[in-house]
Amino acid sequence: MAVWKEKVKEQLEKDRDNSVRLLQSWVREASVQGQEAGVQELVASKLAEMGFEVDKWVMGGEELLSHPYFVSPRTSFEGSPNVVGVLRGTGGGRSIILNGHVDVVPPGDETQWERDPFSGDVEDGKLYGRGATDMKGGNLAALIAVEALQKLGVKLKGDVIFESVVEEESGGAGTLATILRGYKADAALVPELTQMKIMPKQQGSMWFRLKVIGRSAHGGTRYEGVSAIEKSLAVVQAIGALEKRRNDRITDPLYAKLPIPIPINIGVIEGGKWPSSVADLVKLEGRMGVAPEEEMEDAKREMEEALAGLSAIDPWFADHPVELEWYGARWVPGAVEEEHPLMQALMATFEEVKGEKPVIEASPWGTDGGLLTKLADTPAIVFGPGITQLGHYPNECIELDTVFECAAIYALTLLEWCGYEE
Amino acid sequence: MAVWKEKVKEQLEKDRDNSVRLLQSWVREASVQGQEAGVQELVASKLAEMGFEVDKWVMGGEELLSHPYFVSPRTSFEGSPNVVGVLRGTGGGRSIILNGHVDVVPPGDETQWERDPFSGDVEDGKLYGRGATDMKGGNLAALIAVEALQKLGVKLKGDVIFESVVEEESGGAGTLATILRGYKADAALVPELTQMKIMPKQQGSMWFRLKVIGRSAHGGTRYEGVSAIEKSLAVVQAIGALEKRRNDRITDPLYAKLPIPIPINIGVIEGGKWPSSVADLVKLEGRMGVAPEEEMEDAKREMEEALAGLSAIDPWFADHPVELEWYGARWVPGAVEEEHPLMQALMATFEEVKGEKPVIEASPWGTDGGLLTKLADTPAIVFGPGITQLGHYPNECIELDTVFECAAIYALTLLEWCGYEE
Repeated sequence: MAVWKEKVKEQLEKDRDNSVRLLQSWVREASVQGQEAGVQELVASKLAEMGFEVDKWVMGGEELLSHPYFVSPRTSFEGSPNVVGVLRGTGGGRSIILNGHVDVVPPGDETQWERDPFSGDVEDGKLYGRGATDMKGGNLAALIAVEALQKLGVKLKGDVIFESVVEEESGGAGTLATILRGYKADAALVPELTQMKIMPKQQGSMWFRLKVIGRSAHGGTRYEGVSAIEKSLAVVQAIGALEKRRNDRITDPLYAKLPIPIPINIGVIEGGKWPSSVADLVKLEGRMGVAPEEEMEDAKREMEEALAGLSAIDPWFADHPVELEWYGARWVPGAVEEEHPLMQALMATFEEVKGEKPVIEASPWGTDGGLLTKLADTPAIVFGPGITQLGHYPNECIELDTVFECAAIYALTLLEWCGYEE
Repeated sequence: MAVWKEKVKEQLEKDRDNSVRLLQSWVREASVQGQEAGVQELVASKLAEMGFEVDKWVMGGEELLSHPYFVSPRTSFEGSPNVVGVLRGTGGGRSIILNGHVDVVPPGDETQWERDPFSGDVEDGKLYGRGATDMKGGNLAALIAVEALQKLGVKLKGDVIFESVVEEESGGAGTLATILRGYKADAALVPELTQMKIMPKQQGSMWFRLKVIGRSAHGGTRYEGVSAIEKSLAVVQAIGALEKRRNDRITDPLYAKLPIPIPINIGVIEGGKWPSSVADLVKLEGRMGVAPEEEMEDAKREMEEALAGLSAIDPWFADHPVELEWYGARWVPGAVEEEHPLMQALMATFEEVKGEKPVIEASPWGTDGGLLTKLADTPAIVFGPGITQLGHYPNECIELDTVFECAAIYALTLLEWCGYEE
């Protein structure tokens, strides 16, 4: 392994400039939802050049749209093709999926960006732009790991399936479509922005919307009404208590360092229409974390019970129950045991390359790994070079050294997992 | 007085059908903001027919727009003329302003209306439509009071100034313009929807906007951020405490029956953009009640102090103070003593017509009376036939019997206040 390490690092270093230019070209494609075609074209042609069989298609159809795990704000995906490349192994080895998404969240307030949000600029060893860290940098690391092995003349025994998917940011419809199309493997790596932490367990999450009811009145006689804003305070507190109960139960050491392993976040509040009127409706929107081994339906039921319990605190809620809706995005949780051979391989090659033991944690957010693990019978581990804190933020960037370090770990892991012809 | 009572009632009864038709024609003009020209034309021609000198003009100009009491969401009032009619007295009597607004709030959700919002339909003694109760019914009562006296051959000694104004619903720019144009009197009656309660004191109110700051983060690691939604709970509670302190001080018996004499109502809340993100900003909008004898600047200062006090409860607010803005509408408070001769006259004639003592209260909301009292040196009393609970609500209506009863009280009060030629 030590020999391979040196060879792989050398090869990656030799191709470094080309690889950085490739990543720049990907980042400069502003692949926000609905506009992924450009970057997918670049990925597909790179895969074809490398000898992958390339499958590029626009997903859709009844099976997808009516699938219980399908969530997306849209039902037509024109302009947003999925791309899967398959590199056949020589046989007798274990197959692997390398799964990464190319959709990026919008840049947000552009005045907070110090450069064009899709510049792809490189400065001080960092490559800048929306999507650099979440997660085109990770995708590149996975791809150049395969390329380095190819250039070194390695023939892997197991198949390598490179999945360049859309729709991760809105709940995973892209990866769901690859599964329905039949893609699965013995295991998967998802190079999300874990900042080189290995995450065998991923928290799931799902969005909810609450409607808190009040009764309108003139603000000057507000005591004749019931303020939905005041009532929503009680709802926020009840959800805080629910979050505490749920997290007190979590003893998994992979969550030991996280202050709140599976947070419930209320991200949006909106209610009332007129300063001088009592608000008769407040809408709350949030995301509920789901533990890696938890069933989403159980988490939903617990939320329902917490809201039903409000009537014991305030009789208003008995006659005016809070309405609960599960809507929008949802990420399926997933868990792979530390004893799994891909975990063992990844931990060993990490130590080989980095000279230190990896940090093993559970992810604080959902990824497409959950779908692979739960639905495709393909145990998925999340591990990538992106900087966790910079995803979704202005001035997103990635450290290029980490990308190449990660690529080396991937390459050695592929050797170990897929096997290779001597 | 008893003789006059019978004569006036008889005259009002004789003209009742015509009066109802006049009110219908006013209500059928959908005089929401910007569309008051139609009803003002009807009012102006009626005033002219009755022998008033009619002044109809579109307000504007630097003096108005830069006046410290000017508030309006607009600066051009094309399509929204003010109308003032002056009926000169024979001399030697006290003058009076009868001030009512013709602007109405929008109908809102029309599906909640059982008939066209501007139908003017009469059924079971009630006249239906937006503005019937707030406050075209009151305006009609004031006008037919004068008309009845005219038809009875009465010549009042004092001038009667009938003001049909715009913009009351957004803070009183219409009445402000009449004052700047020079209209004032020895006292004023404002026939707002007090449901026959006499209100010598009016609460003022003013709108505020608060910005509560947080710090964004991914919802899955929400502990890395600071939720502006959670922080806004503390702000709502601090404002509740401020409201309590302010109301505990109020000992005026005119407020004895109101659970909260001068409420602070938070009517609008809005914050956060994404269910999976920690909200970094919440906006709150509300109205602060101002006691009749209180200076608005003192109330503002008290709000500022309460917000500044938040940093003692939570150090977050020391570095991220809540932003306070006074914006939008504002109604000046006003107070007339019970000993004022117009109060005495009104109370006496009320008892004469109704056979019972009037209920005297302070108004729970602002009216244009505050501007007249404070700025025009014209003590204003608010008293009218409209049904308080129906203003601004679907299926607004007014009881016609009350309109005519109120008109009789006005007529007798005019006799008493302005004096008349024997």
